[in-house]
Formats: sequence, C-alpha cells, structure tokens
Amino acid sequence: MKRRDVRAVVLAGGRGTRFWPLGREARPKQFLSITGPDPMLLETVRRVRPLVPPRKVVLVADAGQTRQARKLFPKLPPGCFLVEPEARNTAPALMLATARVWLENPEAIVAVLPADHLIRDRAKFLARLRAGVEAAAREKVLVTFGIPPTYPATGFGYIRMNRAAGRRIAGAVFYPVRGFKEKPDLALATQYAASLDHAWNSGMFLWRAGVFAETLGRCAPGLQPAWDAIVAALRAGGAARLKAAFRLAPALSIDYALMEKADGVLVADGDFGWSDVGAWSALATIWPKDAAGNACRGDTVVIDAKDCLVWNPGRLTALVGVRNLVVVNAGEALLVCDAASDQKVKDVVEALRKSPKHKDQI
Amino acid sequence: MKRRDVRAVVLAGGRGTRFWPLGREARPKQFLSITGPDPMLLETVRRVRPLVPPRKVVLVADAGQTRQARKLFPKLPPGCFLVEPEARNTAPALMLATARVWLENPEAIVAVLPADHLIRDRAKFLARLRAGVEAAAREKVLVTFGIPPTYPATGFGYIRMNRAAGRRIAGAVFYPVRGFKEKPDLALATQYAASLDHAWNSGMFLWRAGVFAETLGRCAPGLQPAWDAIVAALRAGGAARLKAAFRLAPALSIDYALMEKADGVLVADGDFGWSDVGAWSALATIWPKDAAGNACRGDTVVIDAKDCLVWNPGRLTALVGVRNLVVVNAGEALLVCDAASDQKVKDVVEALRKSPKHKDQI
Repeated sequence: MKRRDVRAVVLAGGRGTRFWPLGREARPKQFLSITGPDPMLLETVRRVRPLVPPRKVVLVADAGQTRQARKLFPKLPPGCFLVEPEARNTAPALMLATARVWLENPEAIVAVLPADHLIRDRAKFLARLRAGVEAAAREKVLVTFGIPPTYPATGFGYIRMNRAAGRRIAGAVFYPVRGFKEKPDLALATQYAASLDHAWNSGMFLWRAGVFAETLGRCAPGLQPAWDAIVAALRAGGAARLKAAFRLAPALSIDYALMEKADGVLVADGDFGWSDVGAWSALATIWPKDAAGNACRGDTVVIDAKDCLVWNPGRLTALVGVRNLVVVNAGEALLVCDAASDQKVKDVVEALRKSPKHKDQI
Repeated sequence: MKRRDVRAVVLAGGRGTRFWPLGREARPKQFLSITGPDPMLLETVRRVRPLVPPRKVVLVADAGQTRQARKLFPKLPPGCFLVEPEARNTAPALMLATARVWLENPEAIVAVLPADHLIRDRAKFLARLRAGVEAAAREKVLVTFGIPPTYPATGFGYIRMNRAAGRRIAGAVFYPVRGFKEKPDLALATQYAASLDHAWNSGMFLWRAGVFAETLGRCAPGLQPAWDAIVAALRAGGAARLKAAFRLAPALSIDYALMEKADGVLVADGDFGWSDVGAWSALATIWPKDAAGNACRGDTVVIDAKDCLVWNPGRLTALVGVRNLVVVNAGEALLVCDAASDQKVKDVVEALRKSPKHKDQI
C-alpha cells in the first residue's frame, strides 16, 4: 500500500455543557479527561498517530479553544492550529481546513475527526481509516463511516446506504450512500434502527482535497463563491479578509451543505466501538465497575449502592442505599442526578443562566 | 412562685458520627449548627436562659470537648466547665456534677439537659421545666420527662408510669414512675407506643442536689463509696484524686445506676416537640422546605427532585430527577444516601476505620 499524505482535521470547536459541572461552557467535553486519563482531544490525536504524524494534524477551533488546545499540545507547530474566524457550524470550518490542505497538496487526504467521540476498538478503527484513505485516494469519492445503530436514537442523523452495491476496497466494504437523514422522530428511528441499510452518521469523513473542491463545484455550486474567497484569503493572508470569506459560507453542517448533495459518497461500517459520549451515564459503559455496577473516579465507600457513576477525584464519596445515580462534584458545584435523567443536566445550566448570582457556574 | 437556685447541668460529652461527614468523631452533633444557625450546645444553653442564668450553667464534657465548648462560650467563667476525668457514661458524670452543686448548696435544683436534642416548643418546655423545678424543690423526688411516642422506636429507652396516680404540681401533671425499660424489640416497642402509660426516656432529669444524695444512699448504696470519694476529691482538689474517685463509679447510664432503683421518681409529659435528631433525615422535619419537599442548606437548582435533604453551604447543588436522598458535602467527603437508610451512615464510618488511608476522614 502506498504511503499517502494524510491530514487529520480535528474539529475541536464543539461546545456544550452536558458534562456540567465538570464541563463548563469554556471547557467543553473534548477538554475533559472523562474517557481515559487524558482529555478526549488528546486521545483523538493520539489514536490516529500510526496513520497521521502530529505535524500533519490540523486542529480547528475558535480563538479561545485554540488557546486551550495549544496548552494540550505544546510541541505542535503553530501551523497545526487553524483558528475559525467565528463559530459557523462544520461546513465553513471544513471548507477552510480543506482549502488550506488543498493549497499545499490537492492530492492529500483529509480525515475529518470530531474531538469528542470515543472509539473502543482502536485497531479496527485504524484499519477502517486506512481502507477509507485508500478509497479516497484511488477514487473520486467522499467517504464516511456509519455506526451500526444499537438503539432507536433520535439524537443522531442517519445515513441511508445501498447494501446491495457494496464493494471491497483495501480490506473494507464500502457502500454507496443514498441519503443523509436528519434526526428522526422515535417511530422513524425505530424503523431505521431495525433496518440494515441505515447507520448513525458519525461525523467522520475522508476526502482528497482536490476531490472535495471538484465535488463542491459540481454538486453544491452555491458554496463555490465562499470556497474561492477562502482560497484567495488564505493565499493573500490577513485575518479580516479570511473572516469576510468565511462569512460567505452558509452556517450549516457539512452533511447538509455538501454530503447530502454530493454524488459518489461511500460509507463503510463504523463497527469499532464508537460512542459520542453524549452524557454522564454514557461513561458507565467505559469506566471500570465494582461488583455492584458502580463506576467511580475518586475514593468511594459503597454501602448497599448499585449502578452509580461518581466523579469526585481527590475526595471521598460515600454511597449508601442508592441506585442509578450520577454524582459529580467539580468546581464549586455538585450534581446529583438520576442516571436516566442525565439529559436534563442542560436544564440545570439553563436555570443557572437565569440566575445572575450563578453566572460563573456555567 | 419562689425564685429557686437552678443549675443547668448540660451533658456536652456525647460522641457519635451519625452526622458524618459534617460530624466527625472530634466534632459530634452538639457542636454542629444543624437545627438552627448555632451549634446545638449553644441552643441548649440559650433555651433555658429564662430559668438558668449563664453563670449557673455547668457544662460537663471530657477535656477535648471542653476546649471546644469554651470557644463557644467565651464569656462563661471557668467554673462553668466541668471536665470529666474520662468518658464513663452518664452516672459518673452526673454524680460528679451533682456533687459539685451539692457542695455549694444542697437545696439547689439540678436540671440535667442533653446538649444534642431539639425542642420545638420552647415556651411549653420552659413551663414544664419550671413545674419540674417546683416538684423537685417541694418534694423529695427525682423528676424526669417522658416523650409521648410517635412511632414504635426501638432506639430509645422507655419510662413506664402510673397514669391513674397523676397529680398536679405548679401547673403540670406528674405521674409516679413504675420502671425504666431498656431499648425494646419491635414487638414490645409497638405495644409500648400504643399504650398511654409508656413514654420515651428523654434523658432530661431534675433533682435537688441533697435529694439526689439521699436517694442514692438509700436506693443505690453501691454508688455510695464513689459518691463519698467524689465529694472528698472535690473538697480536697487535685485531678489525680478526682480521677481515682470517678473510677469508683460504675460506667453505667444514670437510668440504670440510679433512676431504676430510686423510689419517688416522677415523670411529666414531655410534649414540647422534642427530637433527639438521631440522623440526617430527622432534619427534614425541621428545615424549611420547597414546594417539592426539598430541604436544602446552600444554593440549589432543583429539576424534578422531591423530598431531598442537602447540606452543601457555600457551594451550589443541582438535584435532577432524584427522590428521598440525603446529600452532604462537608470537609473532604461527600455523602449520598437514601433517606430511609441514613442509620447506615455509621457503617460508612466503620468502613473508614478499617482503611488506614481514610483515618483522617472519621
């Protein structure tokens, strides 16, 4: 297999407070060490190292998050950090990142990786990624990975594929994509999850920079003025010009701005133990547990307690007679939450927003 | 009514870790501000102030607890603090305290008050106490208060009384005591709680110092050598001599050492909103609650949570989708406990005792 010029474009700019009170607005999930000993962003870069050397990593984030990211990667050269002029969803960010790669080498392969996902089976993931790189290098295609649904999720987008037309490239099977579906209602999600031709949209993509540019011009010509302006701004340099160019791109996800419209999109099975780690209780499937199903960070005394998740490192937690709780003690705040209600943590943050006294707790 | 010489002997030496992690072995319940803005010991002394001026208070505790108590009462003269040579249950402590009062004035009335109980109806309590003082002053009796049982408690001792022989003294009805019962099993407790002639033993007593001495000599002559030795040691002075005298007294509660054997014991109804505040969930009946029954110290965000008790002052607590929990964040430890299991907090402390790493958390 030829050695390819692969660039990992890591989307490090996500926001969110689902992991409040450990996660705060200024310190979202990708900067938290919740899935392992290091922050998820660091794990994301480390995971692809056999395929992408650090100097070929491009971390995309706004100015504030880039400052945090640089602290995590003190050895990476400044060129590895690409500052979004503003947060405008993934389409503008990926047009900018791909344009920069394209200017260096139109044949280079861009691997788009969210910074806040978990991959349990790293070897399988790398094998799939290598196959995807080959597919993108050999054919004029955009490549994505579809996660086999394990339940009728209404919080993810779905990819519909043509299972009958799969073909093998570099050891993996790739299927033509028939469409990208927005987050469905429960009835539709149940139908999708039961059928073999729907998979969760993982938000991971692979494309050759030149193929991305061509596909954009052919299938999503509305994006062409923004693309041209971004390329011109990168060539000329200057933050103001780049910002103006960036604003020409619609504030949409890449799924809707390009993938949905593109021909020649392929999807491979993303059966490598993916999780978007959407809320605290997701960590219960990752952290080691005691015999009663309690997963704890920090010393714990457990008296007749079951299936609890505790984050209280450096302090002592005693659980007595409780079940299915999420307990998080971080910063100046303590969360005690029924595990099945952990999606409501966002309601806590909304409540804090309305209280001037608690603004610094968000 | 004559002005009587009343001394409040406050038993401040109790130990216990039921309020862990706020309460620690070195900081038991009476030093915690859990029933009001001030520590229970301070509230106990303040409560009887209309009847007992501060200089007539005698705080009985061991040396360590006396040091803590002196910080709480910086204006009390040193004579108000009576140091137990060692912890030996209530009989030796009350013999010592009563002997000291007896040496000053055998006609003085000793009011024995535990430092870690709650009294909700202070006016009624003071009226009962005044009546008890009169009974003890006018007759040769030992007086106690029986709490009307509200449930078949197995954790309290019971007083059996002769309801038919009640008589009115100074506005309250006093009944002859027929016996003191140890903590019963549930079947017996159910029987006691249903009958009008049993009440909980509150541990509060009233006696004239001279009557105590006489009764002891007549009904519990086994205590006489210790009493004589304590009186002699107090007269002579000197810690070593007092300690030796103190050790002559059996390490028993006053109930079993004296009250059980004494004749002429009277009991009055203690229907003044008494609570021994035996564990965290007891505070739920005292603290103000929100509409969903949550009683919280410290700022709280409540999302679909009911009947929880939270101690986390100075920090923020978010409760989401939980029910009937006790949540206590204090020192370097966090307790999350099912309210119905709060008696098991002692099991946490026992578990910590076995862990050298956590010795400082007890």
